[in-house]
Amino acid sequence: MKPPGCEYYGEKFHLMSNKRVWLFHEGNATMRDLLGGKGANLAEMTNIGLPVPPGFTITTEVCTAYNEGGKKLPSGLLEEIQAALAHVEKSQNKKFGDPKNPLLLSIRSGAKFSMPGMMDTVLNLGLTDEIVDALVKITDPRFVYDSYRRLIMMLSDVAYSDKFDHMSKHDFEHIFADVKKELGVKEDLEVSVDGLKDLCERYKKHVKAQTGSEFPQDPTVQIVAAIEAVFRSWENDRAVVYRRKEKISDHIGTAVNVQAMVFGNLGDDCGTGVAFTRNAATGENVVFGEYLMNAQGEDVVAGVRTPMPIQQLKDQNPALYQEFDDVCKTLEAHYKDMQDIEFTIEHGILFILQCRSGKRTGQAAIKIAVDQVNEGLVTKDQALLRVDPELLNHCLLPVIAPGSKYKTIARGLPAGPGAATGIAIFDSERAAELGKGGKGQKVVLVRAETSPDDLKGMLAAQGVLTEKGGMTSHAALVARGFGIPTVAGCSDISVDGHARQFTYAGGVIKEGDIISLNGTLGEVIEGNVAVEEPQMTGEFGTFLGWADEARTMGIRTNADTPEDTELAIKFGAEGIGLCRTEHMFFEGDRRPVVQRMILSDDDAERQVALDELLEFQREDFVGIFRALKGMPATIRLIDPPLHEFLPSLSSLIEEVATNRAKGVSDPEKEQLLKHVEGMHEINPMMGLRGCRLSIVFPQIVEMQTRAILEGAAVVIKSGGKAKPEIMIPLVGHVNELKFVRDRLEATAKKVVAEQGIEIPYEFGTMIEVPRGALTADEIAAETSFFSFGTNDLTQMTFGFSRDDSDRFLKPYLDNKILPGDPFESIDQTGVGVLMEIAVQKGRSVKPGLKLGICGEHGGEPRSIAFCNKIGLDYVSCSPFRVPIARLAAAQAAIMAKSGGAERDK
Amino acid sequence: MKPPGCEYYGEKFHLMSNKRVWLFHEGNATMRDLLGGKGANLAEMTNIGLPVPPGFTITTEVCTAYNEGGKKLPSGLLEEIQAALAHVEKSQNKKFGDPKNPLLLSIRSGAKFSMPGMMDTVLNLGLTDEIVDALVKITDPRFVYDSYRRLIMMLSDVAYSDKFDHMSKHDFEHIFADVKKELGVKEDLEVSVDGLKDLCERYKKHVKAQTGSEFPQDPTVQIVAAIEAVFRSWENDRAVVYRRKEKISDHIGTAVNVQAMVFGNLGDDCGTGVAFTRNAATGENVVFGEYLMNAQGEDVVAGVRTPMPIQQLKDQNPALYQEFDDVCKTLEAHYKDMQDIEFTIEHGILFILQCRSGKRTGQAAIKIAVDQVNEGLVTKDQALLRVDPELLNHCLLPVIAPGSKYKTIARGLPAGPGAATGIAIFDSERAAELGKGGKGQKVVLVRAETSPDDLKGMLAAQGVLTEKGGMTSHAALVARGFGIPTVAGCSDISVDGHARQFTYAGGVIKEGDIISLNGTLGEVIEGNVAVEEPQMTGEFGTFLGWADEARTMGIRTNADTPEDTELAIKFGAEGIGLCRTEHMFFEGDRRPVVQRMILSDDDAERQVALDELLEFQREDFVGIFRALKGMPATIRLIDPPLHEFLPSLSSLIEEVATNRAKGVSDPEKEQLLKHVEGMHEINPMMGLRGCRLSIVFPQIVEMQTRAILEGAAVVIKSGGKAKPEIMIPLVGHVNELKFVRDRLEATAKKVVAEQGIEIPYEFGTMIEVPRGALTADEIAAETSFFSFGTNDLTQMTFGFSRDDSDRFLKPYLDNKILPGDPFESIDQTGVGVLMEIAVQKGRSVKPGLKLGICGEHGGEPRSIAFCNKIGLDYVSCSPFRVPIARLAAAQAAIMAKSGGAERDK
Repeated sequence: MKPPGCEYYGEKFHLMSNKRVWLFHEGNATMRDLLGGKGANLAEMTNIGLPVPPGFTITTEVCTAYNEGGKKLPSGLLEEIQAALAHVEKSQNKKFGDPKNPLLLSIRSGAKFSMPGMMDTVLNLGLTDEIVDALVKITDPRFVYDSYRRLIMMLSDVAYSDKFDHMSKHDFEHIFADVKKELGVKEDLEVSVDGLKDLCERYKKHVKAQTGSEFPQDPTVQIVAAIEAVFRSWENDRAVVYRRKEKISDHIGTAVNVQAMVFGNLGDDCGTGVAFTRNAATGENVVFGEYLMNAQGEDVVAGVRTPMPIQQLKDQNPALYQEFDDVCKTLEAHYKDMQDIEFTIEHGILFILQCRSGKRTGQAAIKIAVDQVNEGLVTKDQALLRVDPELLNHCLLPVIAPGSKYKTIARGLPAGPGAATGIAIFDSERAAELGKGGKGQKVVLVRAETSPDDLKGMLAAQGVLTEKGGMTSHAALVARGFGIPTVAGCSDISVDGHARQFTYAGGVIKEGDIISLNGTLGEVIEGNVAVEEPQMTGEFGTFLGWADEARTMGIRTNADTPEDTELAIKFGAEGIGLCRTEHMFFEGDRRPVVQRMILSDDDAERQVALDELLEFQREDFVGIFRALKGMPATIRLIDPPLHEFLPSLSSLIEEVATNRAKGVSDPEKEQLLKHVEGMHEINPMMGLRGCRLSIVFPQIVEMQTRAILEGAAVVIKSGGKAKPEIMIPLVGHVNELKFVRDRLEATAKKVVAEQGIEIPYEFGTMIEVPRGALTADEIAAETSFFSFGTNDLTQMTFGFSRDDSDRFLKPYLDNKILPGDPFESIDQTGVGVLMEIAVQKGRSVKPGLKLGICGEHGGEPRSIAFCNKIGLDYVSCSPFRVPIARLAAAQAAIMAKSGGAERDK
Repeated sequence: MKPPGCEYYGEKFHLMSNKRVWLFHEGNATMRDLLGGKGANLAEMTNIGLPVPPGFTITTEVCTAYNEGGKKLPSGLLEEIQAALAHVEKSQNKKFGDPKNPLLLSIRSGAKFSMPGMMDTVLNLGLTDEIVDALVKITDPRFVYDSYRRLIMMLSDVAYSDKFDHMSKHDFEHIFADVKKELGVKEDLEVSVDGLKDLCERYKKHVKAQTGSEFPQDPTVQIVAAIEAVFRSWENDRAVVYRRKEKISDHIGTAVNVQAMVFGNLGDDCGTGVAFTRNAATGENVVFGEYLMNAQGEDVVAGVRTPMPIQQLKDQNPALYQEFDDVCKTLEAHYKDMQDIEFTIEHGILFILQCRSGKRTGQAAIKIAVDQVNEGLVTKDQALLRVDPELLNHCLLPVIAPGSKYKTIARGLPAGPGAATGIAIFDSERAAELGKGGKGQKVVLVRAETSPDDLKGMLAAQGVLTEKGGMTSHAALVARGFGIPTVAGCSDISVDGHARQFTYAGGVIKEGDIISLNGTLGEVIEGNVAVEEPQMTGEFGTFLGWADEARTMGIRTNADTPEDTELAIKFGAEGIGLCRTEHMFFEGDRRPVVQRMILSDDDAERQVALDELLEFQREDFVGIFRALKGMPATIRLIDPPLHEFLPSLSSLIEEVATNRAKGVSDPEKEQLLKHVEGMHEINPMMGLRGCRLSIVFPQIVEMQTRAILEGAAVVIKSGGKAKPEIMIPLVGHVNELKFVRDRLEATAKKVVAEQGIEIPYEFGTMIEVPRGALTADEIAAETSFFSFGTNDLTQMTFGFSRDDSDRFLKPYLDNKILPGDPFESIDQTGVGVLMEIAVQKGRSVKPGLKLGICGEHGGEPRSIAFCNKIGLDYVSCSPFRVPIARLAAAQAAIMAKSGGAERDK
């Protein structure tokens, strides 16, 4: 059977290689699948002559075999390890387990993709009582006991804490704290040699007490325990959670790197540190990092002592700094990317223990990319492929000031990135009132969930928090569309709209309390946070200019107002791919007119309301066409069920029941209830909406067509340009399209005749129900463009109601039933197949058929790559995702050009 | 472009043939596409030597060209007509338009399929004032004037009434009535010759007055007017409506048959009649029909005089009867089917004017088929192909006694065939109470729409009437499943449940008023009607036995109770294709337990309720397995959203609001409201249901699996057999299936081990979401059978919510946007394509994969033919449709064997 393909990063299906243990000099950087990222880079650095302590890597396949084969190391493996160890011993002129000249080892995990949450490391492996006793005679006793206590703690934590209680680092740190207390000292370095020796004894006693066995005194037992522990750690909870979050396959396993120890804790001419080859926050081309003298790696991370900035090394040891800087330059020149490096200095000699591509902010990513092109280090294509498109978000939104402290009281979905602070407000009317209206109050709108009704309040708010709804819920759509920092689907809280408050595990937030949101991470924060405006650097424009040169797909935007359109154009949009005409119905004073239109008893009455709406819509389109300056606008005719424009049925039932119980007579409300009840649908998503509305109530779309073309005429007559593409939604049968188009074509011809000028217009359709895709050949014959509405297409292909999916989609993702949220990234094996069928059938009838996508997926990089692959002409997304789409489209084009696979993670 | 295939009967796309006018002897019975049914049969009868007056047929293609080409006869046609006319003149030795020896013509329409609603006929064509004057000198003046007045009336009605007012038959009959009144006579035959002459004058004056022109005095003008009128009549309202109803294509047109007149009104040795070669009501092999002496065809139909039974002709004119009987036998022998014949006797000579396959009741159809096989007239295969499967319904349900009079007050959808009478009751509780409970009252349950809650009331009712819901609404499903006569979606009425009444255009029906339903025709009837129980004849069994021999697909049933199962087996089912386990949750005292299960706060509490339900379900399955006697049972795990088992949200909101307003405290209800609100879904059809439920609440399906297997064990241990096939619904991704199946497989193994016996069981899945079909290869690898759930598959492929589709599906059908209701017959170009993909992909991985269908389509003949074509192993349908499915499957197999197209209509 075909493997599920690229559902997870790194998915691989093959038999285990024969060679399971690789000496560093035998591998190279391309072997990440087999050796893990760390192992591959250690091999690469060894081969380009950098000072890497010798060692070897046990492959990821062994990990998979171990975990899927009953937690047993494959037979023969130990012999291979010992053979590799012999090489290391030889090159170091030491012997593992030899008390007179012992080789000590570091054991580190390393999967294909960096997984900081699960890095298990054991240092100083190979020390035993006997070796310690021997070593104290020939070297610094403090170093020996210090190393031994670290080994006991680390090996216990890594190898035994999953089987025995009180074997974690934490427990050993308690014992260390006791010793320091008894000795009356505070810092580790203040503990005397005897104190350390005593500590080792206590540690060993603790191990015996907890496990019933002595701490292993056979170095081979130690190495086997450490290796197995690293393999097992692949399946621990935090690793699983991390992989789920990062969409990393469970089946790729981790490698184990076994390496000769070098010591940063052998004295004051020793040290250890981490550094980036450039500034990871700003991108500045200066080595950036920290180090600590007389320490082992963990000390830097643990924050026991405050490390020094790497630049101080220049003063402390200029030659060494120069050597280090050279290493950085060598690595960048070699990897053609900014590197994150771990190093150790042993008696003044520099060793490199690890390198990997460095994580960076969006701003830094772009500056580095542009600088590296200017430096001639990478080509523009390489630079474009290096930057994760999602990082561009950082460049567009206010963020929580780095390093600021805050209290997170709940977590939800990071639905709209950016930071927001304001008073909690629980209804949209009030939010709109306070948020705008000149009073200038900053509000955070908190709702159980949002509906189009909430739009006004949302737009007036700094941020939005909802208890329900997923990454593509209404709240999330609006959030991303309008760039509103939003936390959605926050099930940690319980919103009580009546009481105007929400509860969370630790307490209650009432209306007026100040809260903050970190929409980038999905955090709900008590009180204020420091927020800063991001800098739009010149590199941003340069970089996206390169993306535009590279990409072959057009980028449009989903925009419903002139303001949005202008914003999107600023961000690089080349037209509108989706203008939702019904959004205009919610604005300002139009709502009552819309309701009158819906509740009309006859066509004549309805026409009066429609004539009023015509005035509004025409003005809307004039504004949009003006903003577009001749770029095309795909305008979708009314799509949602009409009852979305009416008051909610539940509230009406409640109001009327209350009135009746109290004997209050309100015939108007009773009548309204009857109307709304009559229009109520059990499954509105599949009810009277889209082109079905156009067929049942043709007047509405005739009005819209007139508004579009009259709006275009106004702009054209005033010397501008307008290119309306009128889009008929929810077509499943070619006859639906024909029926609506024929009628609207008649309206269009009438308007053009009335106006007496040329108005270029086209009619097209959305492909968003499976049947539309399946019969795309019939439909293509009758239309000039398709736009894939992948939100609906995903809903109907899966049978997943987006609005109701929270309750099962989360368990689905947790249980790995789905590789990812199909509303976030196109489901290529299901929905994607329908899209391919539609493209193939559509173009079979009309080779030049214009194809686009206007679902939320149009702004998601992997979906954009898919759209590029199947041959769409453009993608359309919300304004704030336009830069992301430009870059993602460029990456897709570059990968397609090189015939390569997906951009590496 | 590929034509839409068999969406409509008779759809054809080809260029017009060169030959547009066919003399009868040039054609034959296979040429129905071109010559229409009547023309083809006239040709056939001519060629087998029957006494057919000579004539010719103008093809259906000319009709299409006329209607689609601006209502103009193609050039050159008139010359062809005149050439054909010359042949007729020659054989009759008369001349069209020659006053001395005039040929008179009959002009009759005739499409491929019999369309009794639109038959336009003009008789006596060719008479003019001059010819009339000449004729009265050489023949019976009464006959001449009688013929002329008929021509004026008929040609006016047919050719001019669509362009001028008061030109219909009705208007001319008024004038005739005036004349009779003036003459003081009652019967047509009593009018004197002068009276008839005067009548002709008055008719002509009326024509002049209305149209401004004389009644055409040029016979060629008459014939052209008549031909054009017939062509135009193809597009009149009643024809369009009829075609829509019968699913006949609009594009096939009607032919025009031009034939030398023979006269039944030339005196007492003349006459006219219609007859069936066998009894159309009972099937008895005796000629059956009526005739009138000294009359023209229309007089028999019009009922002006009472016609005599054909058997009387035996006494009146034994030789002629014998000749007629011989003609009947010849025709049956030739056509191998019962024929419906029109004939005329002119001066003792028999002429056959038309023959066609005769319409018959289900009972007659079967008796005729069996008799004809026994007579050696047809093969079993031919006999099986002849009977419309839907006719079998007649044999299963009580019907309104033929010929009884009643007042239809409203019309809805014929959702459940059969007749019912009883008092109108507006709630299910009361219906259940009155209908059962020993009081023996017959009730008709009337609801705005029904839900599973209404099941008890529906089962206790004689019939069900709903205002809303389509042919596959809950009410309709139950209706057909349980054989309850039902009229659904009756928008002519407005149900007010509170007031316990419904209004219709003419009045109000209150609770307790007696109403009747004709579920076969969708009629709502005031008061009582005479109902009769149909006879189950021995032929029924014989006939269906032949069907069983012929068919290659299995027939299963959708049944949820032992009673249904037994009924279905009686009807010939070979197992259960769909047992809906949740239906058992609604029964009797289980509802509170189910609610407790749903509302449990924790798993332990839930398990207590589930343990109770286990007892119930196990007993259900024991009963079903016993009834099946070893036949397989496909049992679907719980499918609907859990909130379907809870009280409605609207009523709770109303109750709680009322309580609050009145200051009544009911914390339990408030709590329930909170629960139900929490479970409320916006689009439940695409929400937490099907296997999603099994994933989120695995306990429920674990209980069901246990109940199924323990039930099987009980039966097996008592010496019986049980073959459970456990079906996991709504699978869209293979991982859903794997997840659920793995867990249930574990439960199953546990139960088998506990029971200590062999229990044969399988796990399979429904293919009912588009993604399931698209990824059927992945899914097939993990399952032993597929069952197509075409109800849901249709919903999701179209994006049509079945429950909400009334409001747009009707306009869709009215406007020909869809060729038919896709919930009734499988949409072969959309949904069918997905099914084919699933079959092909599924079998590509597992060639022996068992494939079935359990949607409502499984009982619909055209869908059954489609299932046969794509290679399904079985269809499953409600018990009352099992006989229909057996026959339809046989027909599909026979057609497939002969490589033929679909069964002819």
